[in-house]
Amino acid sequence: MMGRDLLGIEDLERSELERILETALRMEEVGRRDVKKVPTLRGRTIVNLFFEPSTRTRTSFEIAGKRLSADVVNFSPSSSSLTKAESILDTAMTLDAMDPDAVVVRHKVAGVPKRIADALQAPVINAGDGAHEHPTQALLDLFTVWQEKGRIDGLTVTIVGDVLHSRVARSNVYAFSKLGAEVRLAAPPTMLPPGIESLGVKSFHSLREALEGADVVMLLRIQQERLTGCYFPSIREYAANFGLDRRKLRFAKDDAIVMHPGPINRGVEISHDLADHRPSVILDQVRNGVAVRMAVLYLFAGRAPRDAARREG
Amino acid sequence: MMGRDLLGIEDLERSELERILETALRMEEVGRRDVKKVPTLRGRTIVNLFFEPSTRTRTSFEIAGKRLSADVVNFSPSSSSLTKAESILDTAMTLDAMDPDAVVVRHKVAGVPKRIADALQAPVINAGDGAHEHPTQALLDLFTVWQEKGRIDGLTVTIVGDVLHSRVARSNVYAFSKLGAEVRLAAPPTMLPPGIESLGVKSFHSLREALEGADVVMLLRIQQERLTGCYFPSIREYAANFGLDRRKLRFAKDDAIVMHPGPINRGVEISHDLADHRPSVILDQVRNGVAVRMAVLYLFAGRAPRDAARREG
Amino acid sequence: MMGRDLLGIEDLERSELERILETALRMEEVGRRDVKKVPTLRGRTIVNLFFEPSTRTRTSFEIAGKRLSADVVNFSPSSSSLTKAESILDTAMTLDAMDPDAVVVRHKVAGVPKRIADALQAPVINAGDGAHEHPTQALLDLFTVWQEKGRIDGLTVTIVGDVLHSRVARSNVYAFSKLGAEVRLAAPPTMLPPGIESLGVKSFHSLREALEGADVVMLLRIQQERLTGCYFPSIREYAANFGLDRRKLRFAKDDAIVMHPGPINRGVEISHDLADHRPSVILDQVRNGVAVRMAVLYLFAGRAPRDAARREG
Repeated sequence: MMGRDLLGIEDLERSELERILETALRMEEVGRRDVKKVPTLRGRTIVNLFFEPSTRTRTSFEIAGKRLSADVVNFSPSSSSLTKAESILDTAMTLDAMDPDAVVVRHKVAGVPKRIADALQAPVINAGDGAHEHPTQALLDLFTVWQEKGRIDGLTVTIVGDVLHSRVARSNVYAFSKLGAEVRLAAPPTMLPPGIESLGVKSFHSLREALEGADVVMLLRIQQERLTGCYFPSIREYAANFGLDRRKLRFAKDDAIVMHPGPINRGVEISHDLADHRPSVILDQVRNGVAVRMAVLYLFAGRAPRDAARREG
Repeated sequence: MMGRDLLGIEDLERSELERILETALRMEEVGRRDVKKVPTLRGRTIVNLFFEPSTRTRTSFEIAGKRLSADVVNFSPSSSSLTKAESILDTAMTLDAMDPDAVVVRHKVAGVPKRIADALQAPVINAGDGAHEHPTQALLDLFTVWQEKGRIDGLTVTIVGDVLHSRVARSNVYAFSKLGAEVRLAAPPTMLPPGIESLGVKSFHSLREALEGADVVMLLRIQQERLTGCYFPSIREYAANFGLDRRKLRFAKDDAIVMHPGPINRGVEISHDLADHRPSVILDQVRNGVAVRMAVLYLFAGRAPRDAARREG
Repeated sequence: MMGRDLLGIEDLERSELERILETALRMEEVGRRDVKKVPTLRGRTIVNLFFEPSTRTRTSFEIAGKRLSADVVNFSPSSSSLTKAESILDTAMTLDAMDPDAVVVRHKVAGVPKRIADALQAPVINAGDGAHEHPTQALLDLFTVWQEKGRIDGLTVTIVGDVLHSRVARSNVYAFSKLGAEVRLAAPPTMLPPGIESLGVKSFHSLREALEGADVVMLLRIQQERLTGCYFPSIREYAANFGLDRRKLRFAKDDAIVMHPGPINRGVEISHDLADHRPSVILDQVRNGVAVRMAVLYLFAGRAPRDAARREG
């Protein structure tokens, strides 16, 4: 049923999302054992092909793979030596010839995982591509909300910040919408993609309005290089208008939770105090990331190679 | 019978080459199983000591080691901090004191693996040293030709390109000659080492003549830094005279295969079309590289440490 | 009995030091087997969090963890991207949320492992922080002397060199003093911390006097960046006054051994000849480092997570 690759949430059916979440629930149980390791992927090889440095996501995939007894190989070509599309593909095809059972790809350019997937025998898992998608982040966000609220359907999820440049936002818009949540976006006008409402979301330029009745407040990271750009006048003004603290959080529902994909800019997107304590669930997101990636690796890297139909050459 | 270290093909007997190829055949069979892992080197430690960056060869050794259940440790000293010969040796001796079962060494200076081997208890496997040798590359090339042609003896192998600076060429000249093939070299005069004929090979300055009757055409990578050097007038002229495409390939035998150690410069050494399709076997070379390195690790890192005679201090 | 973290030798009781040494003795026996691997930490995850590059210590911990069957994950944030204390802590807390069984921390600033330990659930092992402590180095030095001399109590240990900037010296002063050795420091006046005698050690500005009757001579590494600083007039003068060779070694006891934490500066702290042969035990120190780190990982990362009392939030 599931496709060969995990390139984005946009491509997944509701039933596929639910299957991943249910698998993650079983994997999360493994993580609570004394011996947090199962032989499920013994003899399988996972390659982490990270063209963009990302120690957090890479480590999460590495730990997830090792808990499933897979061999995990990290491969981080210097971006300087691989600037041309053809050398990226040749690198990926070279790795593919070593018969990995999955290749986890991160690249700063949107669409690269898809191009690699088109060329490879091995399943490709997108670990973030430009401003396009970051599907495992959205899956761990879904899983965290599901654990906290017991459901996704009917919830109101407010995503705050630089939606325009955020692959996390895009993947989460698809993820929560497909499972029946109402998704709201709150950002300065310069940070909202034009026509975003066509995805079924509501846009707000006022944080207060966007928070009213929200069950989940998801903050996006402001990239350092944009902190002093033309997108908003100053960090202070951004923090004043869209940074979250306990006072502003009162506009949301009493039991609203606060999420952030990390790394956080304390005092910018979120106040110090709120970052470290409930209702923030930022570290639960990280913990659930391992379980969700175990589920993804199990579902995408765990098939019998001989059974899986080979790609058309 | 086999020596303690694998430093170059020059040192190997014909029977040793054959034994490695036969072992690789058994390892290649492991790679076709669903669980591509055997416990052969369980509890053994392989150190990848790469002074020169090389993600491809390092990854191949890492996957090979893990398929044999060895623990693989990557150690890549920044070349800047290790410029003096003594600090290279001290680094290697420090690793040696941690009792690895093999140390895989790459260094940009010819002879460094030999100097390290002289100082270490652990077996040393040369993963490429300067313009000297790259024995596992030649072994995987031998293996690939053997798989394709069923024999090495009596074949005609034409090596094309910058022979002067190529450790791949040197190792392959020894490897194919020892197993009874006729080896030809085709290159601009500036790229052929003087006196190379003493190794029993034939030199050509015309690709067409060198291809006549060839069973195997092996292209060498043109190093980027030499693309605009004094070795040939221009990339375009090199590609025109020594780049291979389907038209020129017709001068070789009808069933000739095309090889390249990678990474390829498309449109320089090889045309786009030829790079991606038969009779090119470039990705088969990569795949066979894992099997051949499993064989090498098995034969050189798998001995009982107590049985192996210690080096003379 | 043992605390949750291993931050420094200063915090340990004599009985705890002895317990670690006795455990290391059992681990050293594992290292002499043909299959140098035990399932003790199967399913456990060790994270090497090295903010400062250190291939030697990192590799020693990695090999130690793998010999115990733990999964070892290397995480080396570029120091440039993590300059603020809060981002260091956030990085560590993110890793902690992935439920590692121990986090091994190196940082160039003294006190960082302690601050990280205060924030984490996982046990923290200090792998060197600034000029503060390097406890596993002192433990492997203790172990090496114990193996060589059969005891620590009553020995005379002379530490030579840049004590002021040396975490190795500090940890060893605590370690050998606690187990009953007499510790002497020999250095130019600019390299001795004022008031160091309060730790119960004796200071000398003459190497000859400090060596008289010494059972152990421990040389400290001179940092390259201080070789031409204001701490001593010249390398030549340092080598003349405090560098060790066979001639000067005669002032120590006949059976004195020579130690160095590495990497050595040949011809500065130690003569070429002495570096490579008995009574130097430099490579034994490296070998014992793996056994000692196995002991430390076993004792600090091997507890049942459910039994270990969680830190107070």
